[in-house]
Amino acid sequence: MKLRRRLAIAVALLLPSAALAQEAAPASETSVYLFNTLFLLSCGAIVLLMSAGFCMIEAGLARARNAASAGLKIIAAVAVAAMMVWLVGYNLLHGVEPGGFLGTAGLFAPTDLDPVGRGRASAADFIFQTASVAIVASIVSGALAERVRLSAFMIFSAALAGLIYPIAASWDWGKGYLEADWKFYDFAGSTIIHSVGGWAALAGALIVGARRGRFQGKRATPMPGSNLPLSALGAFILWISWFAFNGGAQLAFGSIGDAIAVANVIVNTNMAASGGVIAAIIMTSMIYKRIDLTIVINGAIGGLVSITADPLSPAIWQAVLIGAFGGVIVTAGVPALDRLRIDDVVGAIPAHLFCGIWGTLVVPWTNADASILGQLVGAAMIGAFAFAMSALVWIAVKYSIGARVNSDQEYAGLDKSTLGLEAYPEFTRA
Amino acid sequence: MKLRRRLAIAVALLLPSAALAQEAAPASETSVYLFNTLFLLSCGAIVLLMSAGFCMIEAGLARARNAASAGLKIIAAVAVAAMMVWLVGYNLLHGVEPGGFLGTAGLFAPTDLDPVGRGRASAADFIFQTASVAIVASIVSGALAERVRLSAFMIFSAALAGLIYPIAASWDWGKGYLEADWKFYDFAGSTIIHSVGGWAALAGALIVGARRGRFQGKRATPMPGSNLPLSALGAFILWISWFAFNGGAQLAFGSIGDAIAVANVIVNTNMAASGGVIAAIIMTSMIYKRIDLTIVINGAIGGLVSITADPLSPAIWQAVLIGAFGGVIVTAGVPALDRLRIDDVVGAIPAHLFCGIWGTLVVPWTNADASILGQLVGAAMIGAFAFAMSALVWIAVKYSIGARVNSDQEYAGLDKSTLGLEAYPEFTRA
Amino acid sequence: MKLRRRLAIAVALLLPSAALAQEAAPASETSVYLFNTLFLLSCGAIVLLMSAGFCMIEAGLARARNAASAGLKIIAAVAVAAMMVWLVGYNLLHGVEPGGFLGTAGLFAPTDLDPVGRGRASAADFIFQTASVAIVASIVSGALAERVRLSAFMIFSAALAGLIYPIAASWDWGKGYLEADWKFYDFAGSTIIHSVGGWAALAGALIVGARRGRFQGKRATPMPGSNLPLSALGAFILWISWFAFNGGAQLAFGSIGDAIAVANVIVNTNMAASGGVIAAIIMTSMIYKRIDLTIVINGAIGGLVSITADPLSPAIWQAVLIGAFGGVIVTAGVPALDRLRIDDVVGAIPAHLFCGIWGTLVVPWTNADASILGQLVGAAMIGAFAFAMSALVWIAVKYSIGARVNSDQEYAGLDKSTLGLEAYPEFTRA
Repeated sequence: MKLRRRLAIAVALLLPSAALAQEAAPASETSVYLFNTLFLLSCGAIVLLMSAGFCMIEAGLARARNAASAGLKIIAAVAVAAMMVWLVGYNLLHGVEPGGFLGTAGLFAPTDLDPVGRGRASAADFIFQTASVAIVASIVSGALAERVRLSAFMIFSAALAGLIYPIAASWDWGKGYLEADWKFYDFAGSTIIHSVGGWAALAGALIVGARRGRFQGKRATPMPGSNLPLSALGAFILWISWFAFNGGAQLAFGSIGDAIAVANVIVNTNMAASGGVIAAIIMTSMIYKRIDLTIVINGAIGGLVSITADPLSPAIWQAVLIGAFGGVIVTAGVPALDRLRIDDVVGAIPAHLFCGIWGTLVVPWTNADASILGQLVGAAMIGAFAFAMSALVWIAVKYSIGARVNSDQEYAGLDKSTLGLEAYPEFTRA
Repeated sequence: MKLRRRLAIAVALLLPSAALAQEAAPASETSVYLFNTLFLLSCGAIVLLMSAGFCMIEAGLARARNAASAGLKIIAAVAVAAMMVWLVGYNLLHGVEPGGFLGTAGLFAPTDLDPVGRGRASAADFIFQTASVAIVASIVSGALAERVRLSAFMIFSAALAGLIYPIAASWDWGKGYLEADWKFYDFAGSTIIHSVGGWAALAGALIVGARRGRFQGKRATPMPGSNLPLSALGAFILWISWFAFNGGAQLAFGSIGDAIAVANVIVNTNMAASGGVIAAIIMTSMIYKRIDLTIVINGAIGGLVSITADPLSPAIWQAVLIGAFGGVIVTAGVPALDRLRIDDVVGAIPAHLFCGIWGTLVVPWTNADASILGQLVGAAMIGAFAFAMSALVWIAVKYSIGARVNSDQEYAGLDKSTLGLEAYPEFTRA
Repeated sequence: MKLRRRLAIAVALLLPSAALAQEAAPASETSVYLFNTLFLLSCGAIVLLMSAGFCMIEAGLARARNAASAGLKIIAAVAVAAMMVWLVGYNLLHGVEPGGFLGTAGLFAPTDLDPVGRGRASAADFIFQTASVAIVASIVSGALAERVRLSAFMIFSAALAGLIYPIAASWDWGKGYLEADWKFYDFAGSTIIHSVGGWAALAGALIVGARRGRFQGKRATPMPGSNLPLSALGAFILWISWFAFNGGAQLAFGSIGDAIAVANVIVNTNMAASGGVIAAIIMTSMIYKRIDLTIVINGAIGGLVSITADPLSPAIWQAVLIGAFGGVIVTAGVPALDRLRIDDVVGAIPAHLFCGIWGTLVVPWTNADASILGQLVGAAMIGAFAFAMSALVWIAVKYSIGARVNSDQEYAGLDKSTLGLEAYPEFTRA
């Protein structure tokens, strides 16, 4: 019996649906509903905490004169995301025709409707969705810190949360054409969340421009972060919340197969983050003879983003390698952006965009359900759309209200000029 | 409780997906017990984390010389709350006669007894209760920062946790006279937790007095917070923990009706916070031509407090409006307190007291089970009791051991004078 | 495991409300599997957050010039722990023969195997295990802050995570000789996690040596922490995560007996932490006429470590006393180490080692399944093994790559010399 059971579990892990799930009677309809809802609500709440992680990373990597603005921008981003998801984003994502391109977007999400017909409270979907959208905006915030105008960022966030992200997401997660025609596979959002955020950040970095003094001729002037322990805290918050981000993408916890899947997703997520950290430590040691904490933090994030497209099918050693290569990408990507004179305060573009692409394209290595072509088409279509739309919005903002603060305001810092206060009035007086 | 139950079921009946609630057989007695206990334990732990949020807000909004004391006070408050709930508070809250005024308070909570006869481990109730009481004390801590004597605060916290709060709470949640005679409705504690904390803070602010130099003639001297990113972190912690605070007040997760109720509560909680943030951003932009992060943080909290009396019955648009008006109240309330020469370091009185009253009185707008009169009576009775009792205790403390540090100690800061250390010895030396 | 199981059922039988446990039919096999897995996964994720707590404590208690290194060391420790658990630690712990001393350690954890034959996803065990190991390494990090070479710490962490800890743990939790022959009882790891970390830290402190200038003749020079609010945050994170650490050690949430046990464990954990805090406040007030926040933080941790060997069988008043004595131990232990000229930056040795021993030895007071002799043997065997092996590794490291940075690097701080950056470049310039 014991042996048979062990064998069953071993077999269960080799096959998508557990042998155990066949042997053991399924849970009752009510229990399934409760497990699914409890699981998704918990994951949604934890994913919202990721914005706090991004906020701490940005506040720590910005200079002191812009650290309070990091707090304000990301608090505002969460609020704007919630409003836009409710007003239009939720309907856009879920309202697309099967195989279609653009959903019908009636205003106001009907939270009394379970849009995907699965057994769980639809409000749990709504909160998970809101939290995901807040992440996309938080990614942009970090890249454009220290010079973006607050009102410009809020307007862009509204467009990103209400239009750009939900349309892109609908193509796959809303069962649009990428899912129907290309079998595009993006389990938890390497492309749909992280690359979209990264493309939006890249468009912003190009159009808003670099911080004054950041690039002089061919030289990039380092502008060191003001509070690295806070950034380390942010990295920890992200790392652990990512278990809910990737695990939650299973969207269900009502069967033994679901439970095994979520558990394996969490282990792979942790191994990929660890791989990214170790790769970044080794690489910065070798290249710079020092271990740059800011690169290591981005190594963790890079590993996490890389595994996000498919945290389920890789074996552990594959998850380690996928994450480690994410760490390599980040370590190489940060100086590469400097050479291209693209100013990204927190390293969001290497970590979220470059690793998001890597994670998306590597899926067919471990997952027979995905094809290289399908992954390329998905990454390219969503990338082109997200970048073009973001560029349009940033240009519109730039030539209307202005996308960045003026030179004096930037020199004084956004905290003094926009918020009328200082993040650390007693520490930086001198 | 029955009201909540009925409401949850009513909501379930209104929702298409909740046709399930009728069709699906209920979960087994054991499963219900496990869902309820797992849910309430998780919520209790997360609600305890709210004290960490209050601690970060206070440490960030206090001046550097009092930042370590914020940590000590709130760690102490959690410990004192735990002791007092165990010694007497739990029995006081649950021991009241139906419709009664004062419970019989034998010492030592009998955690081996399920006081409300519902299917869950009573120790889960106990931890949720402890965490709630810690919040009430944390609110007071923030308002009185930078001058209250540590021993005075600990004694007051003991009285608050062991007597004032549990008696007030017993009138409604213990099925006392406010529930029996007035159908007073306070789902998660706009009045019972937040206003009680706010009234206690107000009594303390009046009796302990303002920080030296805070008010000169008619002018209020700003005393800027020393570490705003820490306060932003605190706001995020509060925001997300509030899902467990309001959701946990459902006290059950054993039926589809419960699950739908909790999910809707969490969505409304998030929308109200977002409404509060956006209202505060708009208002401070218009009034001050700058976006004061400290007001925006309090806008989020104000929105959260406002929805706490009834996070279940409002539609989303109503939750947004209820929260947004909370943001307005906070934005107007902070300078109003200055004009009244009441010194509230973190803005606890506007956010918790004013918004707590607002949230309580607005319940009948969306909930037919509540009446304006009942809500007024509840808010007034609990307010009068909490304020009078708090004032008595503060006066007793003031004229015995003294409620505030002396002038030299205050000038040097509580950290040096009471703790014998500095929060940031290397940053503020100059 | 069986002991725990029996105990949980015994507890259930003693409690009035647990009449349910007899009457109610057990949950279905599938539901049990889902409850167990959801519970253990959640606990594992939260326990991983404890490393973030340790990181904040260390960053706050170190001087500013070493604060970023605290972040790097603990991020690295988590990554190394994950790798080593996967490579060898998991097999070592679970592969021991019943009653045996050393497991067969094939490389690479087979996460497709449920090693204990209980109904839950084995990947959930794996993540809980990983998180526990990261704690052991984090404890060492704090004690050796400000002078240990980063590479030395990483190598030591690998040995600790891959060999020292899993072998020690296998003697009891892997059903080795301590469980089989001595009925050694350590529910959640007062000895197996905390004392092992403490012994490793002590060996390191002796072999790596004290920070330069820390001890001159008989005088200990205080080196005050740079950011105490961050340490307070760390304490809160630890405190609340400990609910998952101790609760999770039940390893199951599939029966009413399990649920009651976990709930009681959490209440006792909270009461012990509160007892430790209050004892530390009273003692530091009496001895030093000031309330040292750093001692109070360690009082909380000491209380938590003390209750960890058996958070289930004590009544609340016993949990309070066990924790309070932990607070006493910490308050006395910190100056005692100074007198012995042992340099422990965060107070890890008193909190984790001394209180770990106390917590282990006090178990028979409340738990008839444990004997004084068995507890003594377990604490001594594991202590001797952990200390000797740690000393060996530290000596090997010291005489190969070197265990500490050189004098100039130490004076400049590890952040500048090893990481090439500053934690707070704008705050400490002067």
